[in-house]
Amino acid sequence: MKFSVNRNLFIDNLNNVMRAISSRTTIPILSGIKLNLTENELLLTGSDTDISIEVRIPTSEDLTVESPGAIVLPARFFSEIIKKLPGKEFSLEVKESMQTQIISENSEFTINGLDANNYPRLPEIADESAFVILGKTFREIITETQFAVATQESRQVLTGVHFTFSPEQISAVATDSHRLSSRALSLTAGPQTETDLIIPGKSLLELARIIGETDPEIKVCPGDSQVLFEIGNMLFYSRLLEGSYPDTDRLIPTESTTSAEFDLAELSSALDRASLLTHAGRNNVVDLTLDTEKQTVTLSGESAEIGNVEEEVSFKQLSGQNLKISFNPDYLRDALRASVTDSVVTEFTQPLRPFTVNPADNTINFVQLITPVRTF
Amino acid sequence: MKFSVNRNLFIDNLNNVMRAISSRTTIPILSGIKLNLTENELLLTGSDTDISIEVRIPTSEDLTVESPGAIVLPARFFSEIIKKLPGKEFSLEVKESMQTQIISENSEFTINGLDANNYPRLPEIADESAFVILGKTFREIITETQFAVATQESRQVLTGVHFTFSPEQISAVATDSHRLSSRALSLTAGPQTETDLIIPGKSLLELARIIGETDPEIKVCPGDSQVLFEIGNMLFYSRLLEGSYPDTDRLIPTESTTSAEFDLAELSSALDRASLLTHAGRNNVVDLTLDTEKQTVTLSGESAEIGNVEEEVSFKQLSGQNLKISFNPDYLRDALRASVTDSVVTEFTQPLRPFTVNPADNTINFVQLITPVRTF
Repeated sequence: MKFSVNRNLFIDNLNNVMRAISSRTTIPILSGIKLNLTENELLLTGSDTDISIEVRIPTSEDLTVESPGAIVLPARFFSEIIKKLPGKEFSLEVKESMQTQIISENSEFTINGLDANNYPRLPEIADESAFVILGKTFREIITETQFAVATQESRQVLTGVHFTFSPEQISAVATDSHRLSSRALSLTAGPQTETDLIIPGKSLLELARIIGETDPEIKVCPGDSQVLFEIGNMLFYSRLLEGSYPDTDRLIPTESTTSAEFDLAELSSALDRASLLTHAGRNNVVDLTLDTEKQTVTLSGESAEIGNVEEEVSFKQLSGQNLKISFNPDYLRDALRASVTDSVVTEFTQPLRPFTVNPADNTINFVQLITPVRTF
Repeated sequence: MKFSVNRNLFIDNLNNVMRAISSRTTIPILSGIKLNLTENELLLTGSDTDISIEVRIPTSEDLTVESPGAIVLPARFFSEIIKKLPGKEFSLEVKESMQTQIISENSEFTINGLDANNYPRLPEIADESAFVILGKTFREIITETQFAVATQESRQVLTGVHFTFSPEQISAVATDSHRLSSRALSLTAGPQTETDLIIPGKSLLELARIIGETDPEIKVCPGDSQVLFEIGNMLFYSRLLEGSYPDTDRLIPTESTTSAEFDLAELSSALDRASLLTHAGRNNVVDLTLDTEKQTVTLSGESAEIGNVEEEVSFKQLSGQNLKISFNPDYLRDALRASVTDSVVTEFTQPLRPFTVNPADNTINFVQLITPVRTF
């Protein structure tokens, strides 16, 4: 196996594959990156079993193939070496006993490779039921729901986001059973038949990073236990979570008895200040008092050791019944960070019933739910 | 005690005092910041016993004193609270039982204070033997020597930089017994009598950060066990290290048998690549081979697990006897980072004798010494 390649082109592709490789893997060969060279292309593969990423670099004036072959190289070192090479190009050649020689200008590395035959095969996923969505849409819906997944594994299915793709809509729900985020966006060319997928939160986080600020077309190919996303010259595989996702629609209250509209920035700052003290204490809980008669909203928090804070929060509108409610400020902070409008409407029923955070614009299909904490 | 103050003015001064406060202190009151208010000024004090910092904010239209007093407040929380307050100003009032009320616009914090009488007193240092140096000069000499101090405490005196201030020169030496950095710069108004100080490396690092990119005048007041630096409205106290510093002059070789001049950037990159592998191995050692007959310089490094690297290093000049020498690449990297010229001259005698790294400009008084490693 021997090729020479433009170093910057190689690094761009390498960086994408590196996202799938974990330094904490318990399977030694997965700490490596697989290079598979044919006459037509160089394939780079990385995997942590949850996520696998494969990129294709076609032969061109930037990639010259001398002889095909395959090798697995220690990913972290290989990546650092390539990034520090002196030249614009480098050549890579596998010699005896899988010793791999990398040469760039006056610098010559020899590193120990592993047999590529021992690298796990990626799943084969048919593209019969494939459909295309815009990167921007997919990234937005990930950002607005993924933060709400459960991080503890006690109920595996809750560590994923539940997606429903239909011909004209993509909807996503995530909940860790303390809070929930539910979002829907329009699609122009969704799948013909409704498709349900529960995708692990961690996979979605990496996928959102890869999509980045660009807006590539993403071909979604749902498989049995894996889903494949094709983005340009990259294949991104994610494991799917098995099991049935809870019916979350019935959790969202349809009526409210107290309603308040806040400026997003004002409520966020007040919440930041209150959390300063509640984070220091044993109970991370703030109290929100809505007095509809006096037309005041008060937010307070305390830590027995440090002290307490009380603040009058300005609001845009306040109506309904008086209410005092206690909750974890981090859930509201996350909900506000995910918000897509400059104002939010909060809707309450009773002190121990979940409340909702909604965009001030009711044409936007986005509901966040927060469960209060009993403090009495 | 009650005052109101411009929040940005207060934060600027608070940030400086916070540098002296460690969150890992074992003395509870030192995790606090002391506020001492008189009719004329507000004094903020922080200390971790090694370093103490005091800043003065004089009364002005930005600081209104209502009643003098003193209090100690939990530094980290106090600082975070002040930074997150909503208004341009805030007021602070100590109430019953040292409960301290902080108000800014609609936000009201009450935090538990500690009795300022229990805060340790700062040393009193007479300014009879004081002298003034430029911040820029002091910062430069710190940056060029401090990195070479010992980080292990087996020989306390080596954890400091040894300064000698004389009427026309400041000189500094640091060594951890594996490498040494010795630098001298001119002074315009040094002390009348030569003054010797061994200042802990950590204190100097904070001092260099405080001096920053500005060039303030620094009044140096040497005391018995402490030294005081006056910088504008700030007093910076550092503990001094006791004991006699080794005579380092005799360590620096006066002659050499092999000499090579390198471009700083070229040698640094080659060293970076070689260290990639040596950092992964058990021995962090590179081999440098200077062949004066063939006129080649080769740098190599290896890790049994990962592989090896060999590189021809370009040079500007090479003369004397052939030599192969082995050393820790991190010491040379540090030496190159501290260098003040674009080229460096390395001077060698024998494979097991220290070698020097010097500026290519011999009017600059700056010698760095690196001890090789025996590998045979």
